[in-house]
Amino acid sequence: MEFTARQIADYLKGEIEGDPDVKVHTVSKIEEAQGGSLSFLANPAYTPWIYKTNASIVLVNKDFRPEIPLRCTLVKVDNAYNALAGLLSLYKKSLPQKQGISSLASVPESAKTGKDIYIGEFAVIGENVFLGDNVKIYPHCYIGDNTVIKDNSTLYAGVKVYDQCIIGQDCTIHSGAVIGADGFGFAPQSDNNYMKIAQIGNVILEDHVEIGANTTIDRATMGSTVIQKGVKLDNLIQVAHNVVVGENTVIAAQTGIAGSSKVGKNCMIGGQVGISGHISVGDEVKIAAQSGLSSGVKKGKIIMGAPAFDHDKYIKAYIHFRNLEKLVKRIDDLEKQVDNLIGKDA
Amino acid sequence: MEFTARQIADYLKGEIEGDPDVKVHTVSKIEEAQGGSLSFLANPAYTPWIYKTNASIVLVNKDFRPEIPLRCTLVKVDNAYNALAGLLSLYKKSLPQKQGISSLASVPESAKTGKDIYIGEFAVIGENVFLGDNVKIYPHCYIGDNTVIKDNSTLYAGVKVYDQCIIGQDCTIHSGAVIGADGFGFAPQSDNNYMKIAQIGNVILEDHVEIGANTTIDRATMGSTVIQKGVKLDNLIQVAHNVVVGENTVIAAQTGIAGSSKVGKNCMIGGQVGISGHISVGDEVKIAAQSGLSSGVKKGKIIMGAPAFDHDKYIKAYIHFRNLEKLVKRIDDLEKQVDNLIGKDA
Amino acid sequence: MEFTARQIADYLKGEIEGDPDVKVHTVSKIEEAQGGSLSFLANPAYTPWIYKTNASIVLVNKDFRPEIPLRCTLVKVDNAYNALAGLLSLYKKSLPQKQGISSLASVPESAKTGKDIYIGEFAVIGENVFLGDNVKIYPHCYIGDNTVIKDNSTLYAGVKVYDQCIIGQDCTIHSGAVIGADGFGFAPQSDNNYMKIAQIGNVILEDHVEIGANTTIDRATMGSTVIQKGVKLDNLIQVAHNVVVGENTVIAAQTGIAGSSKVGKNCMIGGQVGISGHISVGDEVKIAAQSGLSSGVKKGKIIMGAPAFDHDKYIKAYIHFRNLEKLVKRIDDLEKQVDNLIGKDA
Repeated sequence: MEFTARQIADYLKGEIEGDPDVKVHTVSKIEEAQGGSLSFLANPAYTPWIYKTNASIVLVNKDFRPEIPLRCTLVKVDNAYNALAGLLSLYKKSLPQKQGISSLASVPESAKTGKDIYIGEFAVIGENVFLGDNVKIYPHCYIGDNTVIKDNSTLYAGVKVYDQCIIGQDCTIHSGAVIGADGFGFAPQSDNNYMKIAQIGNVILEDHVEIGANTTIDRATMGSTVIQKGVKLDNLIQVAHNVVVGENTVIAAQTGIAGSSKVGKNCMIGGQVGISGHISVGDEVKIAAQSGLSSGVKKGKIIMGAPAFDHDKYIKAYIHFRNLEKLVKRIDDLEKQVDNLIGKDA
Repeated sequence: MEFTARQIADYLKGEIEGDPDVKVHTVSKIEEAQGGSLSFLANPAYTPWIYKTNASIVLVNKDFRPEIPLRCTLVKVDNAYNALAGLLSLYKKSLPQKQGISSLASVPESAKTGKDIYIGEFAVIGENVFLGDNVKIYPHCYIGDNTVIKDNSTLYAGVKVYDQCIIGQDCTIHSGAVIGADGFGFAPQSDNNYMKIAQIGNVILEDHVEIGANTTIDRATMGSTVIQKGVKLDNLIQVAHNVVVGENTVIAAQTGIAGSSKVGKNCMIGGQVGISGHISVGDEVKIAAQSGLSSGVKKGKIIMGAPAFDHDKYIKAYIHFRNLEKLVKRIDDLEKQVDNLIGKDA
Repeated sequence: MEFTARQIADYLKGEIEGDPDVKVHTVSKIEEAQGGSLSFLANPAYTPWIYKTNASIVLVNKDFRPEIPLRCTLVKVDNAYNALAGLLSLYKKSLPQKQGISSLASVPESAKTGKDIYIGEFAVIGENVFLGDNVKIYPHCYIGDNTVIKDNSTLYAGVKVYDQCIIGQDCTIHSGAVIGADGFGFAPQSDNNYMKIAQIGNVILEDHVEIGANTTIDRATMGSTVIQKGVKLDNLIQVAHNVVVGENTVIAAQTGIAGSSKVGKNCMIGGQVGISGHISVGDEVKIAAQSGLSSGVKKGKIIMGAPAFDHDKYIKAYIHFRNLEKLVKRIDDLEKQVDNLIGKDA
C-alpha cells in the first residue's frame, strides 16, 4: 500500500508543509527511516534527527518550526504521537485477521460463543465457558470451566485462564500470561509443615485491560483479585491474591504486588517494583523503578527507594551515599582538629 | 450447599456463641462479607471488622472475647485460620474433579499410568514416563521422556517438565512453570564466544512441594537440582542449576537463586530476593523482600539489604541514610565552628 | 557406555597420571562423585575435594600438581572446563534425538521445511513459515505467520514466537519463552485513558543465541528488537521493544531492559538488573546483580548499585552505610566536644 502526504494529511486533518505528492509505503523511527518511510517527531530529544532523516514524510506537532529547510515533507497535526498511534492502528487493522473455529480446537457443547469469534488450533475451552462477539482465542490457550470472556477481547497463543474468572471487553492478554492460578496461601503448622489454604475466589479483569507476556495474576482466596478498567500491565508482572489495581494504572515489567494490597487509579509504577502485602497505594502515585513499598502511600506522591520515600529526597540522600567516603574523611579531620584544640586547651 | 452454625461447629469441634441455626452458603473475607457468609478472624489487625461485618457466622480463636454484643454468630475453635483452611479444603474437594484420559491427549504405549488419573486435552506424555495414582495432568502439559510423577500430584494447564525429572507425591505445579530446562552454563572462549556446557543432570521435587505459575527450575549440569519436601515456591521464581532448597522453606514471588547455592530448611524468603551462586544459607533464615545475598548466611539470621546484613541494623542504617542531608549539614556546621575555634586559637 | 582413562585422554589429547585402564560410566561433580564417575577440577575453590573425591577419573588443567598422592586417575588437559564441556556435549549428542513431523502437529501447506526437521505433537506452524534444516520444534510450540527459523535451531516445548520474527541459526529457546509479543506502548489521553500504539515491528535473533525459560522479548514498535549473535539470556528476562543486545553479551536471570536501550558487545550483566529505557550501555561493561541503570554507561566500566556507579566505590560507600550508626555517634560526640570548647572559649 502507498499513500501520499495529501492522503495522510486529509485523514489526520493536518496541514502539509512540503511536497503533497510524495509517497510512503512503510512507517519507521525517525533515526532509522529510509526513503518511502513515514516517520514522526514527538519527543523533543529527537528533534536533531529531523534535519538528517531520510524519511519522506514526518508527522510533527502543529507548533513545530524547522530552523533550516527540510528535505522531508511535514504533516502538522495537533498531537503527532496520537496521530501516529491512529495510523499504526489503522495499518494493523488492515492486515488479515484470524477467524473461525479450528477443527483442531476442543470446544464442548456447553460453551457459548458469540459472533465472529476465532478459536485457534489446540485451544481448550472449558465447560460452560462464555465467549463474547469478536473474541479471539489463539492456539494453545486454555480457558477453565465457567470462565467468561467478553466482546472484542484477544488472548494470544498459550494464555492460561483458570476456571470461574471474568475477562472484560476489549482486553488483550499476551502469550504465557496465567490468570487465576492459586494465590500463595499456607497456614504454618506446629511441625514446620504448611497446610495449603484452598483458593476459592477468582480473577476479574475489567474492560480495556492489557496484560503482558508471562505475567501472572493469582485468584483470590475468597472474593476476587480485580484489575480495573484501562489498566495496562507489562510482561512478567506478579499480582497476588486479593489485590486490586485501580483504573488506568500502568505498571512496567517485573513488578510484583503482594497479597491483598490495593493500588489506586492513574498510578504509574516503574519496572521491578515490589509492593508488600496488605497496604494501600493512593491514586496518581508514581513509583520509580526497583522501589520497594513496605507501607501505604498517599495520593499523588512520587516515591523512590527500598523502602521507598519521597523521590527528590531519595535522590539527594543517594548523592550523599555516593560521597560517604569523603564525608567520613571530613569527620576524621574534624576529630583530629578537635583533639588538637582540646589538647591545647588542657 | 447450605450449612448451619451447629453443623460447622460440630465438624470443627468448636463452640457456638449466638444463633446455632443461622445458615451460610458461601465463604468471604470479614471486610467484604454479606449475609449468608461464613467468615473468620485470625489476624488481630482485622478485629474492628467483627463489630461491623455482615457475615452470618465468624470463626474465631477460642480466646476471643467481643467487647460489645455482635450481630454474627461466633464459632470458637483452637485456631481459626487452620479451621478455615480445613473448611476451604473440604469445599474445594466437594467440587467436581477432572478425571479420565482425554482421547485428544498424546500418551505413548511405553508410558505407565496409575489408577484414577486425569490427562487433559492435548497433553503430551513422553516415552517411558511414569504417572502414579490420582495424578492430574491438565491440558497442554508436556512431560519429557523418562520423567516420573508420583501419586496425587497435580500439574495445571501448560506445565512443561523436561526429560529425566522426578516429581514427588502430593505436589502441585501451576500453569506455565518450567521444570528441567537447561541450566545457564557456558565456557568463555578466547574469541569472546561461549561454548555451551550440556546440562546432563535433572530436577527432583520431593513430596508436598508447590510450585507457582511461570516459575522456572533448571536441571543440574550433573547430578540434581533438588527442591526438598514441603517447599512452597510462589510465582515467577528462578531456581538455577544444582541449587538445593531445604525442607519446608517458603519463597515469595520473583526471587532468584543462582547456580549451586544451598538454602536450608524452614527458611522464609521474601519476594524479589536475589541469592548469588555457590553460597550457603542456613536453616531458619529469614530474608526481607528485595534483599541480595552475595555470601553465606548462618542459621537463624534475619537479614535485609543488598548486600544483606542484620535486619535491625539495616533498618537503623536506612533511617540514617534518609537523613543524610541533615547529617551533612551538621558536619558543615561543625567545620565552621572548628575553623572559628582554630582561628581564635591562633 | 563405559570409557577408560586412556580412551578419554586420547580423545582430549591429554596426559594420564595414574591407572590408564580405570573405567567410568557417568559424569559427576567432584564433591558428589562415586566410583565409576568422571569428574573435573577447574575452579581452584574446589581443589581440596580432589584429595577426598570418589571419582575414578578427574580432568585437571595441565599445571595442576597434587600435594599428596591421589586415589583417582588424572587426565591433564589445556583447559579442564572446556574439555568437560566437549565431553558433555559429545554425551548429549549420543542420546537419541527427536525427529520427524508428528501427525498431531498443525503444519499448513504454505510452510516451507528443510531437511531432517522435528515437529512435535500439537505444535502449530503458521502460514508461510520457513523452518531450516535440522530445526527442532518441540510440542506445543506456536510459530506465527511468516516467521523464519534458520538451520539447527531448537525450540523446546511451549515456546511462542509471534508472526514476522526471524530466529537465526544454531539458536536454542527454552520452554515458555515468548518472542515477539507487543511492546508496551500506550499514548496517554486527556481523560486518563491510554490509547494503544500498535506494534508493527518484529524481533530478530541472530545466530548462536540462547534464550532461557519464560524469558520475554517484545517486538519493536517499528523496525526490530535485535538480539545479536552469540548472546546468552537466562530465564525470566524481559527485553522490551526496540532494544538491541550486542554480540556475545551474557545476561543472568530476571534482568529487565526497557524500551529502545542499546546494550554493547561482550557485556556481563548479573541477575535482577534493571536498565532504563532509551539509554546506551557500552561494550564490555560488567553490571553487578540487582543494579539499576538510569543513564548510559561507557565501555569497559564495572558498576553496581541503583542507580549504579563504579563497583569499587559502591562497595566502599556501602561499608560506610552499614556503619552509619557509628558515624552518627562520632558526630554527636564531636558536637558535644565543640560545644564544650566554645563554652570554655566564651
